[in-house]
Amino acid sequence: MYEGVVQDLIDELGRLPGVGPKSAQRIAFHILQADPTDVRRLAHALTEVKEKVRFCTVCGNVSEADLCRVCQDARRDPSLICVVEEPKDVVAVERTREFRGRYHVLGGAISPIEGVGPDDLRIRELMQRLADGTVTELILATDPNLEGEATATYLARLLKPMGLKVTRLASGLPVGGDLEYADEVTLGRAFEGRRLLDV
Amino acid sequence: MYEGVVQDLIDELGRLPGVGPKSAQRIAFHILQADPTDVRRLAHALTEVKEKVRFCTVCGNVSEADLCRVCQDARRDPSLICVVEEPKDVVAVERTREFRGRYHVLGGAISPIEGVGPDDLRIRELMQRLADGTVTELILATDPNLEGEATATYLARLLKPMGLKVTRLASGLPVGGDLEYADEVTLGRAFEGRRLLDV
Repeated sequence: MYEGVVQDLIDELGRLPGVGPKSAQRIAFHILQADPTDVRRLAHALTEVKEKVRFCTVCGNVSEADLCRVCQDARRDPSLICVVEEPKDVVAVERTREFRGRYHVLGGAISPIEGVGPDDLRIRELMQRLADGTVTELILATDPNLEGEATATYLARLLKPMGLKVTRLASGLPVGGDLEYADEVTLGRAFEGRRLLDV
Repeated sequence: MYEGVVQDLIDELGRLPGVGPKSAQRIAFHILQADPTDVRRLAHALTEVKEKVRFCTVCGNVSEADLCRVCQDARRDPSLICVVEEPKDVVAVERTREFRGRYHVLGGAISPIEGVGPDDLRIRELMQRLADGTVTELILATDPNLEGEATATYLARLLKPMGLKVTRLASGLPVGGDLEYADEVTLGRAFEGRRLLDV
């Protein structure tokens, strides 16, 4: 419908997650009218990220060096590991400023439907990190959905013989949420996990 | 929050229209995991579009040559011009396959709030195209909003002394829409523009 290179750009943009044909068109026309240096900066950022970003050899988080910033930081508690599915989960946990331990990024969750089994995740690397006995607690922070729960259960069973403290993030009502709109599973979990108020 | 180049990419993506911080992060992580050749192709498409795409010297539509595809096409009726605000409006009209004339892209609409006056639009170029008398009808297809209507009215007044046939696209209920959900202005226009059914 468009002239060659404009259509090429719309096609390439349309391949990005969450960018439909209409948004791709809108972004393409924005780029047509944008300052050339801005566009060059975006193109450069895209190629830079592919050239420079690797994955941390210890925890699997994104990193520009062999070790990511968390693994490099000597102030982070080495006895505590938070296990997450993806690098973006690390960012989500970091944002809470609640956690001062280290991470382990699995690279996904067990999902028979998508053909992802335990061997496709960085579980062997996790076991290696636990071998020297430094780690005493493992927090399983996989997503609170079917795949995340299955992965947490699998890991908990696998780790049981090692005598570690293995915990799972609490499920319950989201803060600022509305009880009326909570789904029954979440509300059920909130009842299960109810806490005594010490007043 | 992220390592340098990842954050750079998220920042650059976040500047695009309709891409919020969450989408920017999602796209950035997609790119981290994508095939390097795909990413290089996207970066290339971005720079190509800035290098190759110009604007048609006659109608102002996007083009890789001096003349756009419509202006180059001898089969398009030169006596009929459809006036639109933006190049993407050309694509929208082309998609209907109803129009076999030529286009004139104004490059926007009159908007005192945004400081866009008649001199900022390609109105002088339009008048030049009308000078030789080839054009007999002008269809004003600016957007059916305040700015588009103001622009259409301005043009209609400007063109009146030239004795051309000047028309405006019909306003009314969208096809497949629901009368109940139509706003009162649209519904009012649909009454105004009602047509006799010849059955």
